[in-house]
Amino acid sequence: MHTYKLSIAYDGTNYHGWQIQPNGVSIQEVIQKAMHVILRNEITIIASGRTDAGVHARGQVAHFRVNDPIDVYRLMGSLNAMLPADIRINNIVEVSPNFHAQYSPKGKTYHYHIHLELIADPFHRLYRFHVREKIDVNILKECSKLFVGTHDFTSFANESHQGSVSKDPVRTLFRLDVVDQPGGIRLEFEANGFLYKMVRNIVGTLLETAAGKYSIEDVKAMFAAKDRKKAGKAAPPHGLFLVHVNYPTDVM
Amino acid sequence: MHTYKLSIAYDGTNYHGWQIQPNGVSIQEVIQKAMHVILRNEITIIASGRTDAGVHARGQVAHFRVNDPIDVYRLMGSLNAMLPADIRINNIVEVSPNFHAQYSPKGKTYHYHIHLELIADPFHRLYRFHVREKIDVNILKECSKLFVGTHDFTSFANESHQGSVSKDPVRTLFRLDVVDQPGGIRLEFEANGFLYKMVRNIVGTLLETAAGKYSIEDVKAMFAAKDRKKAGKAAPPHGLFLVHVNYPTDVM
Repeated sequence: MHTYKLSIAYDGTNYHGWQIQPNGVSIQEVIQKAMHVILRNEITIIASGRTDAGVHARGQVAHFRVNDPIDVYRLMGSLNAMLPADIRINNIVEVSPNFHAQYSPKGKTYHYHIHLELIADPFHRLYRFHVREKIDVNILKECSKLFVGTHDFTSFANESHQGSVSKDPVRTLFRLDVVDQPGGIRLEFEANGFLYKMVRNIVGTLLETAAGKYSIEDVKAMFAAKDRKKAGKAAPPHGLFLVHVNYPTDVM
Repeated sequence: MHTYKLSIAYDGTNYHGWQIQPNGVSIQEVIQKAMHVILRNEITIIASGRTDAGVHARGQVAHFRVNDPIDVYRLMGSLNAMLPADIRINNIVEVSPNFHAQYSPKGKTYHYHIHLELIADPFHRLYRFHVREKIDVNILKECSKLFVGTHDFTSFANESHQGSVSKDPVRTLFRLDVVDQPGGIRLEFEANGFLYKMVRNIVGTLLETAAGKYSIEDVKAMFAAKDRKKAGKAAPPHGLFLVHVNYPTDVM
């Protein structure tokens, strides 16, 4: 048995998210179909986690297992020749049989891009959330510090499609950096794991706080409430990028 | 009579170019239709020049004339509310009745973006030309110097849709800068004017020269030949951006 790790970038605009589902074309489906044609074998690709419709990835990671060894360089060339231009395989490498893209990660990094100028930019429309209303970036930065560290993030998690929040809603956010960039800001999230819609729910709450709807004390109370309905609304998917998934070296 | 100047940005991906035409939706048509609804008046908008299908603009300029003065701030808000997100009006200002977007310019600036990494980037696919083959950027930079200055650019101009190259094929290229940017290069063209497809034809010739197909002497001979068929092929439209149009202050 051989295990291969793929590094994948995709523009999520035209897909119904990573995971195969009946209502639309998913990234997983498109890659698996191409693999099927190339390897003449139905192969399931497991990603580090699903991304929702419209969410992008620069560093999604996935794995698959096959009985016979594969020429990874040829496979990568064939896949990139077959796949649509909004999905690219950036690397394929054989890893330990203990590697599992979904269960092995030590941490993940997401970036959320926000455009703050009055007039939207046609070239950012699919990749940055355009916030027209006046927000106080200093309040946003101050509020962001509340989220760093180990917390019960129940109030910032949606029920997954399986119908429940993760059994363990405690996660450790290693950092939440608010970085200035031309025309706006970028929020960089690094954690040992993320609950469903956690990044978008935190971004939405931060923006509503920075717009004056909530105080810092309100946000502290949201954590204590452990109730999704008490926190701010989710930011839209198109500003969100899965940037990096971090694995322990002993499964690589 | 009042004359208004519009500054327009657009992602050209989904349009058949600037100019109204029977075969598809143009940017001019979309803006004129919105103006018609807002001003209840059929207004023709004249741009600095047409851009072809797939070509983008950050700083297209256009004008229109009306009998009664307009609240430009309201018009801009109404237009941006009605227009699709891939077209934005960045400014509207009243200018001299002598202003003509197409005939008044002193110069224009175009940028052409080239992505040079082996694997394409899904987020650049609509905005940068991906060149997979090995090119020598130093040769490209050396060759680019041949184009700067006042030349007969016949060999680098296509016939326009009116069926002829401009009567005067001499243009002055003030600068052609090759700028390194992450993942590739950007070619910045500034001239007193451009012939039809001139930027894309020059970029194509530069790339073929940098790939070893032509020598610097060959490119000099292309100028002398005054024959489009003797020069390199056109680079694709999606790497091209109209960045700025420069007008004399006395018509502003």
